[in-house]
Amino acid sequence: MSDQSEATVAPVNAPEPPYYVAVFTTVRTRDQSGYGETNARMEDLVREIPGFLGMDHAQTPGGLGITVGYFRDADALAEWRNNAEHRAAQKRGRAEWYQSYTLHVAKVERSHGFTRT
Amino acid sequence: MSDQSEATVAPVNAPEPPYYVAVFTTVRTRDQSGYGETNARMEDLVREIPGFLGMDHAQTPGGLGITVGYFRDADALAEWRNNAEHRAAQKRGRAEWYQSYTLHVAKVERSHGFTRT
Repeated sequence: MSDQSEATVAPVNAPEPPYYVAVFTTVRTRDQSGYGETNARMEDLVREIPGFLGMDHAQTPGGLGITVGYFRDADALAEWRNNAEHRAAQKRGRAEWYQSYTLHVAKVERSHGFTRT
Repeated sequence: MSDQSEATVAPVNAPEPPYYVAVFTTVRTRDQSGYGETNARMEDLVREIPGFLGMDHAQTPGGLGITVGYFRDADALAEWRNNAEHRAAQKRGRAEWYQSYTLHVAKVERSHGFTRT
């Protein structure tokens, strides 16, 4: 049954295609010193990129994390990829925080959403 | 620090582009009767699709779930989309299990992975 009190979390709505998704799937190491601060800073930074459309994140406790970033076009993604502070964070992530990760960059051809009314 | 015991969970490795991703972001309702059985059946079914390359899933407790399916080409995705049992499960999902969801279907242009050694 529907329960409106559950609607405080919601996925990012589908923008009008075409747009880009960056799908980042991760397994983290045990030592996460400094991760929270850096992650919060990256979330602030990416929101400043013109053409950034939003972000979804899910984390299975002790398991896989998935972050999906949505961008208007390849230029917006390139600006984020080349951001100096972001690059430094990526380097630290490989050295300290990530056991493994995969990044998939893709152009969205179609999308749709559903919301219970 | 590295800890090999954490490596039992791993993201799907990046296939050689181009390939397709189906990014499915969900918020579920409180009543999940029957969801587990149907979800397990769908996971078995999708693995039978020629061109299915793998799946990543993460679920924040009480929050967002993200499932990413990887497919070799648009034909593989179409076969999954049109599967009769899958369509029936989608219909039941809208009626019972999902508060809201978004589906993004996208063609991967580049990807890379990292694994701690």
